[in-house]
Amino acid sequence: MASTFGKIFKLTTWGESHGPALGVVIEGCPAGIPLAVEDIQFELNRRRVGQSKVTTPRGETDRAELLSGVFEGVTTGAPISLITFNKDADSTKYENLRDVFRPGHADFTYWAKYGHRDHRGGGRSSARETWGRVAAGAIARKILATAGCEVYGFCREIGGIAMETFDRDEIENNIVRCPDPVAAEKMIAAILQAKEEKDSLGGIVEVRAKGVPVGLGDPTFDKLDGLIGLAMMSIPAVKGVEMGGGFESTRSRGSLNNDGFIVDEDGRIRTRTNNAGGSLGGISTGEEIIVRIAVKPTSSVEQTQHTVTTNLEPRDIVIEGRHDPSVCPRAVPVAEAMLANLLADLYLVNRAARI
Amino acid sequence: MASTFGKIFKLTTWGESHGPALGVVIEGCPAGIPLAVEDIQFELNRRRVGQSKVTTPRGETDRAELLSGVFEGVTTGAPISLITFNKDADSTKYENLRDVFRPGHADFTYWAKYGHRDHRGGGRSSARETWGRVAAGAIARKILATAGCEVYGFCREIGGIAMETFDRDEIENNIVRCPDPVAAEKMIAAILQAKEEKDSLGGIVEVRAKGVPVGLGDPTFDKLDGLIGLAMMSIPAVKGVEMGGGFESTRSRGSLNNDGFIVDEDGRIRTRTNNAGGSLGGISTGEEIIVRIAVKPTSSVEQTQHTVTTNLEPRDIVIEGRHDPSVCPRAVPVAEAMLANLLADLYLVNRAARI
Amino acid sequence: MASTFGKIFKLTTWGESHGPALGVVIEGCPAGIPLAVEDIQFELNRRRVGQSKVTTPRGETDRAELLSGVFEGVTTGAPISLITFNKDADSTKYENLRDVFRPGHADFTYWAKYGHRDHRGGGRSSARETWGRVAAGAIARKILATAGCEVYGFCREIGGIAMETFDRDEIENNIVRCPDPVAAEKMIAAILQAKEEKDSLGGIVEVRAKGVPVGLGDPTFDKLDGLIGLAMMSIPAVKGVEMGGGFESTRSRGSLNNDGFIVDEDGRIRTRTNNAGGSLGGISTGEEIIVRIAVKPTSSVEQTQHTVTTNLEPRDIVIEGRHDPSVCPRAVPVAEAMLANLLADLYLVNRAARI
Amino acid sequence: MASTFGKIFKLTTWGESHGPALGVVIEGCPAGIPLAVEDIQFELNRRRVGQSKVTTPRGETDRAELLSGVFEGVTTGAPISLITFNKDADSTKYENLRDVFRPGHADFTYWAKYGHRDHRGGGRSSARETWGRVAAGAIARKILATAGCEVYGFCREIGGIAMETFDRDEIENNIVRCPDPVAAEKMIAAILQAKEEKDSLGGIVEVRAKGVPVGLGDPTFDKLDGLIGLAMMSIPAVKGVEMGGGFESTRSRGSLNNDGFIVDEDGRIRTRTNNAGGSLGGISTGEEIIVRIAVKPTSSVEQTQHTVTTNLEPRDIVIEGRHDPSVCPRAVPVAEAMLANLLADLYLVNRAARI
Repeated sequence: MASTFGKIFKLTTWGESHGPALGVVIEGCPAGIPLAVEDIQFELNRRRVGQSKVTTPRGETDRAELLSGVFEGVTTGAPISLITFNKDADSTKYENLRDVFRPGHADFTYWAKYGHRDHRGGGRSSARETWGRVAAGAIARKILATAGCEVYGFCREIGGIAMETFDRDEIENNIVRCPDPVAAEKMIAAILQAKEEKDSLGGIVEVRAKGVPVGLGDPTFDKLDGLIGLAMMSIPAVKGVEMGGGFESTRSRGSLNNDGFIVDEDGRIRTRTNNAGGSLGGISTGEEIIVRIAVKPTSSVEQTQHTVTTNLEPRDIVIEGRHDPSVCPRAVPVAEAMLANLLADLYLVNRAARI
Repeated sequence: MASTFGKIFKLTTWGESHGPALGVVIEGCPAGIPLAVEDIQFELNRRRVGQSKVTTPRGETDRAELLSGVFEGVTTGAPISLITFNKDADSTKYENLRDVFRPGHADFTYWAKYGHRDHRGGGRSSARETWGRVAAGAIARKILATAGCEVYGFCREIGGIAMETFDRDEIENNIVRCPDPVAAEKMIAAILQAKEEKDSLGGIVEVRAKGVPVGLGDPTFDKLDGLIGLAMMSIPAVKGVEMGGGFESTRSRGSLNNDGFIVDEDGRIRTRTNNAGGSLGGISTGEEIIVRIAVKPTSSVEQTQHTVTTNLEPRDIVIEGRHDPSVCPRAVPVAEAMLANLLADLYLVNRAARI
Repeated sequence: MASTFGKIFKLTTWGESHGPALGVVIEGCPAGIPLAVEDIQFELNRRRVGQSKVTTPRGETDRAELLSGVFEGVTTGAPISLITFNKDADSTKYENLRDVFRPGHADFTYWAKYGHRDHRGGGRSSARETWGRVAAGAIARKILATAGCEVYGFCREIGGIAMETFDRDEIENNIVRCPDPVAAEKMIAAILQAKEEKDSLGGIVEVRAKGVPVGLGDPTFDKLDGLIGLAMMSIPAVKGVEMGGGFESTRSRGSLNNDGFIVDEDGRIRTRTNNAGGSLGGISTGEEIIVRIAVKPTSSVEQTQHTVTTNLEPRDIVIEGRHDPSVCPRAVPVAEAMLANLLADLYLVNRAARI
Repeated sequence: MASTFGKIFKLTTWGESHGPALGVVIEGCPAGIPLAVEDIQFELNRRRVGQSKVTTPRGETDRAELLSGVFEGVTTGAPISLITFNKDADSTKYENLRDVFRPGHADFTYWAKYGHRDHRGGGRSSARETWGRVAAGAIARKILATAGCEVYGFCREIGGIAMETFDRDEIENNIVRCPDPVAAEKMIAAILQAKEEKDSLGGIVEVRAKGVPVGLGDPTFDKLDGLIGLAMMSIPAVKGVEMGGGFESTRSRGSLNNDGFIVDEDGRIRTRTNNAGGSLGGISTGEEIIVRIAVKPTSSVEQTQHTVTTNLEPRDIVIEGRHDPSVCPRAVPVAEAMLANLLADLYLVNRAARI
C-alpha cells in the first residue's frame, strides 16, 4: 500500500485500528520551526473519539509521542516520527466479522486484493489511520503560519440540514462544528435521532484557507485543484469534492461566473467575487481557498444487513460496537489537516518556481 | 511545472497553445501491445475542435505523430513519444491581451507565480494541453482492454438541462454526447442561444468504467477515489468531482446508502446497488466506476469584462477569438482519457499487491 | 530530508542516534509473506554493535518491535512499521562537540544546511540510521526468496589487506566476515593495531546476489546499475561502487571484456564470463550480481585533530567514545540489505514490464 | 521503462537509435532563465559523433529543436521539449542482428525482459539516448551559473594510460579531452591502434563541479553521493563511480583521510584537503565535487565473437558499422551533463531545507 502524501513535505502513515500502535513519519519538514508535542496534541484532541454525545464513546487517548526530528524544541529537517499506542482496542467484538464483508466497508475489497487481512476494527482501512494525518497537519499549520496562512473548517450540512448563517466564532462552540448555532441544534437533534434509530447520517464539510500566498500549485498534474481532489477523496467516507462555486457553478454562465479582477486599497490584485474558490489554472489566487466535501453516512449501523461471507454464503449481520452516528464533526479536523498538509507542501515546492 | 501523471504508466505532457508543437511522453507502457497511430488518432478526433456547431471552429487537425516506443506495430516497453504540430494558431488576436488578466483564466496566477508567461492562446494553461492526455488515454484503453475493461462518458447536464433517459448507444449520435436524445436537442439549443448571447454554459460530465478488475487502488494515498479526484480536477475548467452517490448520498442514511453484498449467478461477489460508484476503501469493487465532474461555463466570453493589467490599471476587455460556448462535449473524451490513464496505471501497480 | 528508498517496495527510515527511538516504515510489501520479528532480529544482530573485539563495545540491544502490517504472522500489504528504542545512548560525551565540526563527519554540512542540528552521537547523520535499512532488508530477502534469489556479502579487503582465497562458508566464521580465513587473521590484527594506535582502517566490501531473475532493472534512469549506485553510495562512509570488472575493466579491451553468450545444459542463456557483474544495459542477466563498495576509514579517531567551531574559531579536538576501528565488518549486512531492498523493489516493478 | 531523472528539475528522455527522432522533456526548470537553442547546441556538439578520428564517423547533425517552455528567449516554468530528428540511421547493417545477442550489449536482457525489441542500432539501449541528457544539462548549467557553480570534465585515463599533469586549459585542446597534452598523444595513439586491431579501449572519466553552494544533497536517500551514484551509473558503459579519495582512500587511515576544517581569508569554513570529494554526510561542503567513473571498453568490436540467437542456437558474429573505439572522449560531456542535471535539481530542492 502506498501510504505517502506530498512531494517535499511528505507524510507516511502506518498502523491498524487494533494493532499495537499507529503513527506517521513526516519527511521534508524545514529546519528551524519551534515545535512541541502539545501543538500536535491540540489538533489530535479535536479529532479524538469520545468528545461528545454525537461521537463514538470509544476511549482512545490518542496521546502522541514525538520520537525524532526535533531537537531542543526546534525542527532539524530530519524525519519527524510520531506514534500513539492503542489502548482501548477490543477485538472480541470483531471476531464474528472475520469472514464477513460489512456493507459499505472495505472488507471485501481488501480481501479480494490482498488475500489476507486484519479484520479487527477495519484494520488498515479504519478511519483511525487519520490520526497521523492530523498530527502531520499540526506541523503543516506551523509552516503555513510563517507565511500568514491559516486553515479552518466546519460542517455546512448534516443529514440534509444546512447552515443558514455564518459566524466563524461559533464553529468550535458547538459539538457539530457548525458556524450557525441554530442549525447546529437541529443537526445535533438529527444525529441523536438517527442514533436512536440505529442509523447514521452524512453531510457536507467545508474547509478554507485564509492568507494563502499567490502562486501555490504546480500545473499540470500537481495543480492546486487536482491535489485538493487527491487530498480530500483519500479521506475515508468522502465521495465528492468541489471548490468555490463547484457543482452549482455549472448552472451559471461565463459572464456571471468569472471573477473580475480589481486592485484593492493595498495595491494588491484581487477578485471581486470568489466563484473560483481561490484557484485559477490550478494556482492559488490569494483569495480564500474554499473546499467542500461530501461525507457519506457512516457505514456501520446497528441494523440487520444482508451480506455474504468469504465462502460466498449469505449472512445477515448486525454491527455492534461503538460508532459515530455521523463522522462529519470529526471529519472537520481531518479535512483541515489534509488541506494544511497540501498547502505546506506546495508552499515549499513553490520556492523553486523562479530562478 | 510538474506535468507528469501516474506511477508506472506515466504520462508527461508538454507544449503551449501557440507554440510550434505539443506532445506527450508515456513511460511504463508494457511491451507487447499492438499499437497503431490510427488508434490514437481516433480518440484525438473525438476531442478535436471544429467538430460541430457547438464547438469552436478553430482548424487544428491535431494529427498525431508517433516517434518512439513502438516497433513493427507493437509496443517495446520504451517511452512512447507523441507529437502534434500546431498549424492554425493565430497569435495576433492575443497581442492586446499580453498585459491583461482575463477573468476566469490563469493569466494572473501564471504571471504572479512565474513572472514571465506566454500569453498567446493561454500558453501552457490552455486546454490544448489535454491533447496529450487523450493521446495517452488511447494507449491506456488498450491496456485495459486486455483485462476486459472499458471506459466511456457522456454529458449528463448542460446549462442546467439534465438528461432524463439513458441509452448508451445514443451518446455519440448527437453533438453534445448526451445519452438522452430529447435532452440533447434542448442542450444544443441552449448552447446556441448562449453563443448568440455571447455567453457560455457549464455542465456535468459523467465517465464510467465497465469490467473493472476488483482490487485497483492502493490505499492510503493512492486510493482509487483520491486519484480520481486528482485526475479529474487537473482537467481545465473542472471545479468538482464525485463518485457514485456523491453529494446526494450525504442526504441518505447508512442503512439505505450501504450496498449489500450478494453472490451472482457466476459465483462472483457483487453489490445489489452501487451507491459507492465502484469503490470501497479506495479499491475497486468490480462494479461500474461512476464519476461525475462539474465543468464551469467557459471563461472566454465575447462581452465586456472588467479587469486589470500587469501595471495594476483597470481595463475593460472583450475577448475575441473562437471559443467553445460550452466545453462539456469536448470534455467527455478528456475525462474518459484521464480515467483510462489512471486505471491502466493502477492495473499495473496492482500486480505487486500479492506475492 | 528525503529518507525514502524504492518505488513499490519503499522504505522510510527515521530517528537520531541519541533520540528516544529509531525506526523504519516499509510500504508496498506484498501481502501473503510469512514474517516473524525473529526473522528481522536475526539480520539486525549481524549489524549490531558489540559483536566482537573489532567492533565498538557500545551496548545497544537493537531489539526490533513490529507495530503494523503483519496479521497472524503474515504480511497484509499494509505499511510495516519497525521500531527500536535507544537504550545505551550517553550524550554527555558529545556535549563538548556541540559547537565543533568533527573532521570527516557531517557536523559542518548539517549545520550549514539546516542551521539547527542534533549534535549528540551524530544525530540523524549517524550510521545508526542503517538499523532500519537492515530491518527492511530482512523482509526484502523474504520476497526475493520466493523467486529463488539470495543476497550475501563479505569483506574483500581491509586496510589494504586483500583476500586471496574464496570460501563462502568461511564468511561468518570470522569476525571480519572474510571468505579467506588466512587473510581474515591478518585483517583482524591490522584492525587491532590501528585501534591500539587510536586510528582506523577502511576497506572494500563485496555483495552479491545469486539466482537473480533475468529482467530486473528499469532503463533508463531506474537501471539496475544506477540504482545500485544510489543504494550503495547512500550508505555512510561509502565513497565508491563498482560492478563486475568495475574500474579494472577499464584497462581491458572490448574483445576480452565482453561476456560471450552460451546456452547451458538446462537450455538457459548464460554468459561464459561475468565481467558485467550480472547486468547488461541496466537489466539483470541472471548471472550473479557482483558489487564492490569502497568504505573509508572511520572518521572518529581518538587523536588530536584540527578543526573549527561554529564561531569560526580554531579548535583541537580528541574524539572520545566508543567507535569501530573499521566499519567494514558491520557494513557487510548493511550493504547486503540495501542490495536486497533494491532487488525486491525491482522484482515487483518488473511485473509491469509486459502485458 | 522509467526514463525520468530528478525531483524538481526533472528530465524524461525518449527515442530509439534508429527511430524517427529522439528527445527530452524537462519539467521544473524555473521561470526567468534566458535560454537560446544555441546554448543547448553548443553542448550537443561536444557530444556529437564524427568530431574527430577517435570517434565514430557517423553523420548525425544532432540539431536540437526547441518546442516549448521558452517564450521570447526566457524560460516560463513550463516543460521544455527538445527534439532531434534522426537523419543518418542505416538500419540495414542491423538486419542480421535481429535475432542475435551481441556480447556486452543489452540485446539479450531487453529481449528477455520485454519479449519484443527494436534491434536497430541498439534501439532504446543505444547511447544515442544520452542526447537528451546533454541537452538538459545545458539548461542545468544555466541554473547553476546563477549560483556561481560550474561543471567540467576530462579523461583521466584511457586504455591504462593515465594523465600525469593537469592543466584545465588543455582539456578541450585535444580530441581525447585530456588535461595532460603528453598523455593525450599517447591515448590517441592507443585508441588508433586498438581501432586498427578492430578492438576497443575503456578508461576513467573525471567530472568536477566548482563553486558549489554548501548544503546540496538531501539525506538519507537523496544524498549527494547516492544520487551521483545513480546519475553516473545510469550512463551506458559505466561500471563504477567514486568520489574524492574513492577506492584508494580505503587503504588510508582515518587520521590521514579526514579533511581538517579551517577558516579561509574570506571567513568561509573550508577543508585543508578534499579527500571527501566535496561531500560530507551526503551534503556538499562547498569544496570541489570530484567524481570519477569507470568506462568499459566499447562492446561493439569488429572481431568474431561467439554468441547465441533467440532460438538458442550458437552463432559467430562480426559487428560491422561505425563505432567509437573508445567512448571516453564523448562520455565527458555526458557525465558533465548528468552532474549538472543532478546539482541543478538539488539546488532547487535545497530551497526548502529551512523555514
